[in-house]
Amino acid sequence: MADNKWTQLWLDYESKLQQNEEEGEVGISFDGFDAENRVIQSAVEELMRALSDINLTIEFKKDETLAKEAFSVVGSLDGDANVVISASDENGALYGAFQVIRSRYTGQGLTKLNITKAPSNPLRMMNHWDNLDGSIERGYSGNSFFYVNNEIEINDRTVDYARFMASVGINGIVINNVNVKQAASDLITTRYFDKLRLLSDIFADYGIKLYLSLNFASPIELGGLEVCDPLDDGVISWWKDKMKEVYDNLPNLGGFLVKADSEGRPGPFTYGRTQADGANMLADVIAPYGGIIIWRCFVYNCTQDWRDTKTDRARAGYDYFKDLDGQYHDNVILQIKNGPMDFQIREPISPLLGGLTKTNQMLEVQIAQEYTGHQIDLCYLIPMFKEILGFKTYCQEENDTVADVISTRAFGNKLGGMATVINTGNDYNWTGNYLAAANLYGFGRLAFDTELSAEVIAREWVRLSFNLEKDLEDKLVQMLLGSRETYEKYTSPLGIGWMVTPQGHYGPSVDGYEYSRWGTYHRADHFGLGVDRTDKGTGYAQQYYQPNADMYNDPKTCPENLLLFFHHIPYDWKLKSGQTLIQYIYDSHFEGYAEAKELQKSWKEFEGKVPQEVFDCVSHRFEMQVANAREWCDQVNSYFYRKSAVADEKGREIF
Amino acid sequence: MADNKWTQLWLDYESKLQQNEEEGEVGISFDGFDAENRVIQSAVEELMRALSDINLTIEFKKDETLAKEAFSVVGSLDGDANVVISASDENGALYGAFQVIRSRYTGQGLTKLNITKAPSNPLRMMNHWDNLDGSIERGYSGNSFFYVNNEIEINDRTVDYARFMASVGINGIVINNVNVKQAASDLITTRYFDKLRLLSDIFADYGIKLYLSLNFASPIELGGLEVCDPLDDGVISWWKDKMKEVYDNLPNLGGFLVKADSEGRPGPFTYGRTQADGANMLADVIAPYGGIIIWRCFVYNCTQDWRDTKTDRARAGYDYFKDLDGQYHDNVILQIKNGPMDFQIREPISPLLGGLTKTNQMLEVQIAQEYTGHQIDLCYLIPMFKEILGFKTYCQEENDTVADVISTRAFGNKLGGMATVINTGNDYNWTGNYLAAANLYGFGRLAFDTELSAEVIAREWVRLSFNLEKDLEDKLVQMLLGSRETYEKYTSPLGIGWMVTPQGHYGPSVDGYEYSRWGTYHRADHFGLGVDRTDKGTGYAQQYYQPNADMYNDPKTCPENLLLFFHHIPYDWKLKSGQTLIQYIYDSHFEGYAEAKELQKSWKEFEGKVPQEVFDCVSHRFEMQVANAREWCDQVNSYFYRKSAVADEKGREIF
Repeated sequence: MADNKWTQLWLDYESKLQQNEEEGEVGISFDGFDAENRVIQSAVEELMRALSDINLTIEFKKDETLAKEAFSVVGSLDGDANVVISASDENGALYGAFQVIRSRYTGQGLTKLNITKAPSNPLRMMNHWDNLDGSIERGYSGNSFFYVNNEIEINDRTVDYARFMASVGINGIVINNVNVKQAASDLITTRYFDKLRLLSDIFADYGIKLYLSLNFASPIELGGLEVCDPLDDGVISWWKDKMKEVYDNLPNLGGFLVKADSEGRPGPFTYGRTQADGANMLADVIAPYGGIIIWRCFVYNCTQDWRDTKTDRARAGYDYFKDLDGQYHDNVILQIKNGPMDFQIREPISPLLGGLTKTNQMLEVQIAQEYTGHQIDLCYLIPMFKEILGFKTYCQEENDTVADVISTRAFGNKLGGMATVINTGNDYNWTGNYLAAANLYGFGRLAFDTELSAEVIAREWVRLSFNLEKDLEDKLVQMLLGSRETYEKYTSPLGIGWMVTPQGHYGPSVDGYEYSRWGTYHRADHFGLGVDRTDKGTGYAQQYYQPNADMYNDPKTCPENLLLFFHHIPYDWKLKSGQTLIQYIYDSHFEGYAEAKELQKSWKEFEGKVPQEVFDCVSHRFEMQVANAREWCDQVNSYFYRKSAVADEKGREIF
Repeated sequence: MADNKWTQLWLDYESKLQQNEEEGEVGISFDGFDAENRVIQSAVEELMRALSDINLTIEFKKDETLAKEAFSVVGSLDGDANVVISASDENGALYGAFQVIRSRYTGQGLTKLNITKAPSNPLRMMNHWDNLDGSIERGYSGNSFFYVNNEIEINDRTVDYARFMASVGINGIVINNVNVKQAASDLITTRYFDKLRLLSDIFADYGIKLYLSLNFASPIELGGLEVCDPLDDGVISWWKDKMKEVYDNLPNLGGFLVKADSEGRPGPFTYGRTQADGANMLADVIAPYGGIIIWRCFVYNCTQDWRDTKTDRARAGYDYFKDLDGQYHDNVILQIKNGPMDFQIREPISPLLGGLTKTNQMLEVQIAQEYTGHQIDLCYLIPMFKEILGFKTYCQEENDTVADVISTRAFGNKLGGMATVINTGNDYNWTGNYLAAANLYGFGRLAFDTELSAEVIAREWVRLSFNLEKDLEDKLVQMLLGSRETYEKYTSPLGIGWMVTPQGHYGPSVDGYEYSRWGTYHRADHFGLGVDRTDKGTGYAQQYYQPNADMYNDPKTCPENLLLFFHHIPYDWKLKSGQTLIQYIYDSHFEGYAEAKELQKSWKEFEGKVPQEVFDCVSHRFEMQVANAREWCDQVNSYFYRKSAVADEKGREIF
């Protein structure tokens, strides 16, 4: 492995096959599928690589009764060992092949396989925040493997990347940062078409569509127009010509992701137009080519005055988009962050999810650990995503969870899905911390099958990646499963979020965003902390359906882990545990720090059980995590002790 | 003026001569001076430019009874108008010529002149923090005019710069940042010798010596040695060869400024050597060439744990350097920042100044407004420098002020002087804010003559720069004189310092450095704030001579404007004014903000009285200052209100 320039992540057949030196023979046959199809060829190639040491016949069988991209894999021991992979389309066949491989390497008998799966979500996407200069916004795993010095790089790593993505069911990838600047604006020009076509072909081999982030101001920046007003005839005409050119060159392009009117990006608001005006114009232009416009709902006032307690960033998405429900064209899909703020360790679910009913909608999460430890601290995020998916929005009587909404089950929208800001880079191990790959694997698996538990996913990934003895496998699974709550304990308490070093977003700075323009305040004073978002405060709680609205509105019924998000609470408030709020802050921070040390200690048991490179890398990350946890614990406790003047009941050292 | 690429600052004869269209004739004669001497030629040239509209004879007369660099200018109306400029050396003659010009343009009759001045300080230096890539560390006036893209630029601006410096008596300039990195390490190689020689020649025309900042690790970085241990024979031998090469190429070089063992820079500590070991080694090597080593005392632990209340950055300079007093060779001079921290708006005087008695020492101040408003906010610093110079150290019975110590009057040291981090850049007006040039002018004038008052200097500069009607001249002088206290009022109170945005150092962040590694804490809690530096605290106060040590040690005798620097004080502490500490914080911040608005309002009266470009630029700066002052006022007040829970007696709005 050390000879390679990158690891094979959970598809590391080679090292496992070496342990089993037998030669096998896999026979492949086709019933209804074209053996020459690019996706089928990829599936076959992958099976040959992964099963080269066993004797098996595999049939790819077309079954039109199966759903789009669904598969069924059925094994039998009918004389010879054989497996039938059925699907109604090539993507389904490819996913079936990866199911066979996954089953094999997680130790299930192939001849006993009987699995049918249809993807929970039509769109399962990765969003790269890679810049064309090779940097990655919020990247913690090196530089981009797509771009070097404003050129697109295509090599074997690109192919491996596509394999990994397909293996977990990803079918769409946005390859450039949503903040489209500098050279990235040129991605829709002849400067990049040739390389993009090559990339798009590699993706297509694995059933993946290429998407681009789009600069809404392109008519100005590329076209030399005076405006980019979406209702301006000249602008529309410019886009029509441009998109014809783009699709002539990139016929497989899935469409575009747009961040407009957000954090300084241009958008329709500049011209007094709505978000729907902007999205629909672009969508209409690309409709003839089958493209879609993914429009981000991350729109808020990022020049708020901290003195202003009426404005509430949490309200902004709903306020801007809810009234436009029903106005979006059917090849527009709104991409909505899981919470109303920005990927904090604990937030309520965005009320837009299910708040919109007549609009295509898609959940956006972030496995790049921007606010959750920079892939230094262990933070397995699948339990968080499960909470999000399972959240009952009460948007209707049944089928009302977020999973229902985004899957299109709830309202029968044309489009739906899940996207994540990806956590990869050109590091040897792709994700910086080897253990952060659990989020990469897990997101894909969960997007494909939202019914999977966080534990099942963790166990699959651990087994595929490390093939440990049972007790260590259990241990690592438990380490993953508890890691999000550990991180939460030593960082910002009870849903208030932030308290993080400005700009970098790693490490504590309790007041770091308290007097800033970003709308991210904790409002702590001598008596208490938290933001009043009830009907007596900013009214944010009222953006939910009942009974959620009432539940959040009352501090007695509000889930305690979101208490400070919705309420300004005095330090002597009694929690259900009997702890006062201030005592809870102290206790949870000391606990979180202790748990971080416990993680570090537990990892020592893996020496010799995982490759030394893995052990050393992860050991170093845990060392940094412990230092970070200590800093958070001491700074948060000292901050609140100095402010409240309430002593820790247990007399521990606070500075 | 607008046709030029830069202004002429206080030497803008041309615009004034245009108002007086007469033709004059200046006759120059020499008695004892060589008319061909480069410095004498500069003096003559300057006089011809500045006095071209009047009839006058000027004699340069050598008078060996005058001190080094001193001058006497005596005018008379003996038939013709004439002035005799006497001096014992060429620099004295040049400074005499500039005195004549200054006298003329401040409206004094040349025939009545009778001024004799010897410079207060032998060394009067500018420290540029210019990097070779053209950036300037802590620069607020554009980029470097010395460097573009790692090349040295020499042009007419270089000559003008040298003229300005000579006109206020500067005789030494360090042209590169004390943090010597990248290309700057190559300044002592053939890569730059040719250009440096040209630059050194231009400086020499104006009686100025060129100095370089030196990378202590040069033996490693340039020489390929393993170490830069100052006691290593190989290292010493490398330096000998290197310095021979340097002085062969740059015979006029004054010497080197060294920042060692500071903020990540290499130094003798790495090898278990003292600061004296490091400085003396270099000094010995360059002694044959007449060079000097200027060694900065800005050495402290910049990776302090904020939990650690025993370590005190304020102590560090004295702790590291005091015991070595007497060990430094006589061509070493220690450069000591005015305060023990880092150029805050109010600090006590460094106890090293006068604490050292057997060592050459030099005061370092900063007119680059790093912590004092970035040349956006008006902050005339000469009153602060006057306080520093006038501080009685009690290092001996008489002649014990800082001015006495650094001038060499106190202890008869061989070397002494003043240096400032300069506030210039390649902006059209040199200093960003036109009014910030008062500090550039003022530093030079004060370093030459420490007896001048801040008001006299301000008035000279205002008159030379703007030639206003009397009432507006008075007004601008008063605006300058009060500006430092205004800035102090709306920023950090009573000497505690910091509370500033990390890294950038503009704008408030009360806790910005509170939990950091920089040793810069205010220790505010619910009950009070300030750092106990008494004999019961860090003991810093004991680094002073008596009675200063006792005075600072007792909060009742400690000057109130330094109260929080030396003491942790409860909010209800009664100040001499009768205000409580917390009420003082509120009052002074509201006052400071109000005064900033008053400055902005006052400036409106200058419209039409100064060039429009000046008016507009300064108006814009005042607008930004008012916004900054408001932010400081509201954040500091809110921070302390939220923490102390004590209401403002006057019921003003605090957030």
